[in-house]
Amino acid sequence: MSGALREQRILEIVQRARSKQARFRDAQITMAHGAGGKASQSLIEGLLLPALHNDALAALGDAGTLTVDGTGLALSSDSFVVTPIRFPGGSIGELAVNGTVNDLAVSGARPLALTLSLVLEEGFRTSELRREIDAIARAADAAGVQVIAGDTKVVERGHADQMYACTTGIGTIDPRAQLSPSGLVPGDRILVSGRIGEHGMAVMLARDEFSLEADIRSDTRSLWPAVDALLGAAGPGLHCMRDATRGGVASALNELARASGVAALVREADVPVAAAVTGAAELLGIDPMYVANEGKLLAFVASDCAEVALAALRTVAGCEQAAEIGEIAVEPPGMVLVDTAFGGRRVMDLLAGDPLPRIC
Amino acid sequence: MSGALREQRILEIVQRARSKQARFRDAQITMAHGAGGKASQSLIEGLLLPALHNDALAALGDAGTLTVDGTGLALSSDSFVVTPIRFPGGSIGELAVNGTVNDLAVSGARPLALTLSLVLEEGFRTSELRREIDAIARAADAAGVQVIAGDTKVVERGHADQMYACTTGIGTIDPRAQLSPSGLVPGDRILVSGRIGEHGMAVMLARDEFSLEADIRSDTRSLWPAVDALLGAAGPGLHCMRDATRGGVASALNELARASGVAALVREADVPVAAAVTGAAELLGIDPMYVANEGKLLAFVASDCAEVALAALRTVAGCEQAAEIGEIAVEPPGMVLVDTAFGGRRVMDLLAGDPLPRIC
Repeated sequence: MSGALREQRILEIVQRARSKQARFRDAQITMAHGAGGKASQSLIEGLLLPALHNDALAALGDAGTLTVDGTGLALSSDSFVVTPIRFPGGSIGELAVNGTVNDLAVSGARPLALTLSLVLEEGFRTSELRREIDAIARAADAAGVQVIAGDTKVVERGHADQMYACTTGIGTIDPRAQLSPSGLVPGDRILVSGRIGEHGMAVMLARDEFSLEADIRSDTRSLWPAVDALLGAAGPGLHCMRDATRGGVASALNELARASGVAALVREADVPVAAAVTGAAELLGIDPMYVANEGKLLAFVASDCAEVALAALRTVAGCEQAAEIGEIAVEPPGMVLVDTAFGGRRVMDLLAGDPLPRIC
Repeated sequence: MSGALREQRILEIVQRARSKQARFRDAQITMAHGAGGKASQSLIEGLLLPALHNDALAALGDAGTLTVDGTGLALSSDSFVVTPIRFPGGSIGELAVNGTVNDLAVSGARPLALTLSLVLEEGFRTSELRREIDAIARAADAAGVQVIAGDTKVVERGHADQMYACTTGIGTIDPRAQLSPSGLVPGDRILVSGRIGEHGMAVMLARDEFSLEADIRSDTRSLWPAVDALLGAAGPGLHCMRDATRGGVASALNELARASGVAALVREADVPVAAAVTGAAELLGIDPMYVANEGKLLAFVASDCAEVALAALRTVAGCEQAAEIGEIAVEPPGMVLVDTAFGGRRVMDLLAGDPLPRIC
C-alpha cells in the first residue's frame, strides 16, 4: 500500500469511529473522564446530555444561553481543583475568575458578575484562604466583574485538597456576536491569540515531580479584551471562538471540527510556542498542542477578515504573539490534521488518557 | 440577683457581643466554619465580605441581584457535599436542584435555569452517578428549570467523597416581591411553612452512626409554589423570607433579627415538629430548631396579612402543616427569644460548633 493510500485508510477508520454517537459504558470514573479528551466526551455525550436534554446544553458551547425579557444572557460554570493551588504566574483564585469569565467571553458575552462557591478542607490555613480570596478580588476587578453571591462548605481533613472553588458567571451577549460552536465554514482562517502551553506546563513543573526547572508562568488572564477586539474587527465574519483550556488547542480544534462537520488543517510551524515550553514538553514527552492554556483563545474567521482580525488581536495586551495557524477545509469532516514542521501530515485526535491531571 | 435581673444581665452581655463587627482570627478552617453558625458568620463577615466588598454581597441575601436592561435578576450558588449521598427522601442530586432553586425563591425570584458543576472522585461507580444525574433531571423538571451549562472535574481517589455538586441558579425577580433580609418590622408575624428538622435528621440517621431507627424522610422540594402563594396573598405585606437550611430555623431567625435590628419572639409550642423528629432529636441531644430543612421557609408578614398568608400557604403541597410561630418585636434588638412549652423564656443563639456536619 502506498503512503497516500495508507493515509487514506487511516483517515477512513478514524472517521468511522468519530461518526458514532458517543456511548458511555465505563463502570467507574477515572481521571481521564476529567481530562477534556475522549473519556470526557463520552461521559458528557453518553450520560450527562441524554439525562439533562435541552437545546441550550445540546449546543455544547462554553456557556449556556437564555433570553430574559428580550435580553440575551449567557451563563457558564466551572469547578477548579488545580493542584498545587499556587504556581508561577497565578493560583486557583485567579483561575476561578478568569476561567469562567473566558467561557463567557468566547461565547460572545460581556462578563457582568460571578458567584463563588467554595469547598474547604478542614485544617486549611486561613492565611492561604485569605490570599486566594484576595486573588479572586483582584482578578475580578481586572476582569470588570463583581462576585455577587457565594457559599462555603467544609469537608473533613483529607476529603478535599485545601480548597476547591466553583465559579459561575453571567454575561450579556454582545450584539456584534454571531457565533456558534458549529459555525466553522471551509475557508475560515484559524487564529490563536498567543503562545500556547504555558499554563499547563507551569502547573506541572510546580509539582516538583520532575527535577526540571524552567521559567514558565501561567498565562491566566481575562480574554474579554481580546474578544472585544475581534468582534470589533471582524463582526459577523467572526464565526466561532473557544478558549483552549483542558486538553489544549488540539482538543478544542477536535470538538469544533466535529461540531461543524469540517476539517481543521493546522500548520505546526506557525503555532507560537515559547522555547522553554517546547523544551519542557519534549523532556516530558507531551505535545504542547494538548497542554492547557488559561488565557488563550482560538478564533475562526472568514478569510476576508482574517488579516484585520489578527492585526486587532495583536494590539491587545497578552496577545502580541497572536498568529494565523491554519484553516478550515471540507475534507476530512470532523478531523484535525497537522502539517508538521518536517513536511509530513498527521491526524491530531482527542487524547484517550490524561497526561496532565488537575491543571485547572 | 432576681430571676428577671439575671435575665436582663445575660441579655446585655449577649447583645454587647453581638454588636461587635465579626472578626476572623482563626488560623485554620474547622468543620464549624461550614455549619452556618457563629464560625460561618465570622468567616463570611470577617474574611470573605471585606475582600470581595460590593453592595450585592453585603446585603447577605440568599441570592445576589443585578439589573440587566431593566430586568431584575437573581443569582444564587451552592455546593453540596452531603454524606451519605443518598438518604430517605432524597439524594445529593435533588438537594443540588432544590437547594439553589429555593435560595432564588425566598429572594422573590422565579427560578429559570441552573448550571451544574461536578467534582467526581476517581473510582466513583458510574451507575451511582447516572442515578444522581437522573435525580437532578427529575428535580429540575419538577421545579420548572433547565440545566443549561455544566462542568465536570475528576480528583484522585480519596480527594472527594464520591461526588460534590455545585449548582448556580438564575431567576427573574417577581414584580410582587418587596423583600429584604433587613425588612423585618416589629409586629410582623413569623410563619413557618411546615414541620421542621426532617432533612437533617434523615441524613444523620442514614449514617448508621447511631443505632436508631425512625421513619424520617428528607423534606427536599422546590419552595417556589409556596413563595408564589405567599406573594399572591400578602404582596408588599410579605417583608422577608428565608429557607431554613444549615443551622435550621434558629440560625435563620438569628441572621435576620440581626440584619433588621429587631427581636424575634418564638412560641416553642406552636412550632410544628413531627413526633419522630422530636424523639430522635431528644435521643441525640439536638434541638430540632437547629436541624436543617431543605423544603421549609420562614416568612415574615405584616400582622394584617398574616391570616390570609397562612391560609394561602396551607393550600400548597408540602405546606399543609404551616403555622404562625411567633412575632417580631423591638427589644432586645438582634436576638431570638423562645417562650418554652414549660412557661420559661430563653435566648436561642447561633451555635458555636457543628453538631450536624455535611447535611447538605
